[in-house]
Amino acid sequence: MSKLGFIGLGIMGTPMAGHLISAGHEVALHSRSGVPAVLTDAGGKACANAREVAQQADVIFLIVPDTPHVEAVLFGTDGVAAGLSPGKTVVDMSSISPIATKDFARRINELGCEYLDAPVSGGQVGARNAALSIMVGGSQASFDKVRPLFELMGKNITLVGGNGDGQTAKVANQIIVALNIEAVGEALLFAAKAGADPAKVREALMGGFASSKILEVHGERMIRRTFDPGFRIELHQKDLNLALANARELGVALPNTATAQQLFNACVAHGGSGWDHSAMVRALEMLANFEVG
Amino acid sequence: MSKLGFIGLGIMGTPMAGHLISAGHEVALHSRSGVPAVLTDAGGKACANAREVAQQADVIFLIVPDTPHVEAVLFGTDGVAAGLSPGKTVVDMSSISPIATKDFARRINELGCEYLDAPVSGGQVGARNAALSIMVGGSQASFDKVRPLFELMGKNITLVGGNGDGQTAKVANQIIVALNIEAVGEALLFAAKAGADPAKVREALMGGFASSKILEVHGERMIRRTFDPGFRIELHQKDLNLALANARELGVALPNTATAQQLFNACVAHGGSGWDHSAMVRALEMLANFEVG
Repeated sequence: MSKLGFIGLGIMGTPMAGHLISAGHEVALHSRSGVPAVLTDAGGKACANAREVAQQADVIFLIVPDTPHVEAVLFGTDGVAAGLSPGKTVVDMSSISPIATKDFARRINELGCEYLDAPVSGGQVGARNAALSIMVGGSQASFDKVRPLFELMGKNITLVGGNGDGQTAKVANQIIVALNIEAVGEALLFAAKAGADPAKVREALMGGFASSKILEVHGERMIRRTFDPGFRIELHQKDLNLALANARELGVALPNTATAQQLFNACVAHGGSGWDHSAMVRALEMLANFEVG
Repeated sequence: MSKLGFIGLGIMGTPMAGHLISAGHEVALHSRSGVPAVLTDAGGKACANAREVAQQADVIFLIVPDTPHVEAVLFGTDGVAAGLSPGKTVVDMSSISPIATKDFARRINELGCEYLDAPVSGGQVGARNAALSIMVGGSQASFDKVRPLFELMGKNITLVGGNGDGQTAKVANQIIVALNIEAVGEALLFAAKAGADPAKVREALMGGFASSKILEVHGERMIRRTFDPGFRIELHQKDLNLALANARELGVALPNTATAQQLFNACVAHGGSGWDHSAMVRALEMLANFEVG
């Protein structure tokens, strides 16, 4: 049993913190929107702010929406940094900028504390079922120490490299997912417009070099027209924004990521911020004046 | 034992025709570049032109480079059409335009003959090992009749739909393969430029939603810098040209396919027409002035 902290108790953080509490850990909790009763009922302890969480815990997890929120939680008034003492570990499970992460890690290290970036994929369902994929950046020693706690929340847990590399892997993941969705969208729309049955085409392609998790899952959604999330377009837009903003800072051209973001923007123009990201095909359909399914 | 014909005896056609001869079929052969001795030694019969092949065979296969070659073989002087009589079947295993294919099929049907479009994937290795994927367009009856012969050359054999739909599936396949290569290229280049180990990032992503045959096979080639074909860029350019030319005729916008073709063009500008198609990442690397591996 360790003294833990958990900051950010939204649709991801609440079940994740719940798993830590269920395993018998003492968990100090804080969230901008209040601490859910389900967690205090289970034995979690509500704190007034992030500073108090950091004072009471040895390992402090956070999962909040984006880079500025992490910066505020860590270094703002009554933030984590104000409550840290040497030897503690901060674990950021948000999906944020890899470049900013390296800076945050350096500033936490300067306080004599460890830092892990540990973004997740698998969404709300993965959080609830403790089946998240966790991509970690940081030292081997910190990783080894926190690993048993990660195992309470996830299944595929990889130390990718040093600080920032966990976030980099997550961005790389979101680039591929978006572009594979776009690829399946172009292919199925082409097939449908050429008069073929896109379901038959998808079948013929599975198992060959075109096969992917996206062809399997999101290809089927495009054909069946089931665009309930899943993963909302507005969240994937945020991730592609991280990719494009970091690419600009790094000096890397990502031409198809840029186009994919524009197609998401077009979906949002049609009211689609809450559609599943497979609905990116709808933007291609608008251009073709024709639908896959 | 059926009386068969095979036209086009290049690196694909020679082993494919060889499998038909080995199975005991009488095979009439023709190729612009002459009939390889390995096939006549095995019992195949060389013919002076495509017309003679069509006169002697009940099922006539062809596999030649592109749409104009198929048109010339079928409808040119001393072509297949000149040698057909009602009841015969023409099977085009080339990868050509789906729109032109519908026209070719109609003209063959008007002669009282059946037509199947049956492009393949799997390359030279698949042809040699009788392990090709075969995507077929045509009637169920013709497909059922020719299927035992397809099974001598391939493994994954799918009737996708009517004439042209086999070619459409092949184009869709090549769109996805090119765009998944581009996606993995953008992601690994981003990761490398951000300071992460691309091999570790690839590992962390396998098994999740970013997983694909391309991440597995071509992602590894990008990291190991092994760009020997495989599948040559100039061949994939031909396939994307089919996609883009047909998209124009059909009225479909394929923004990322268009970009992928430009990246292939950039590789060719640097002497890369014979590089494996995974080397598309090199065009992205030129833009970033940085390499994945």
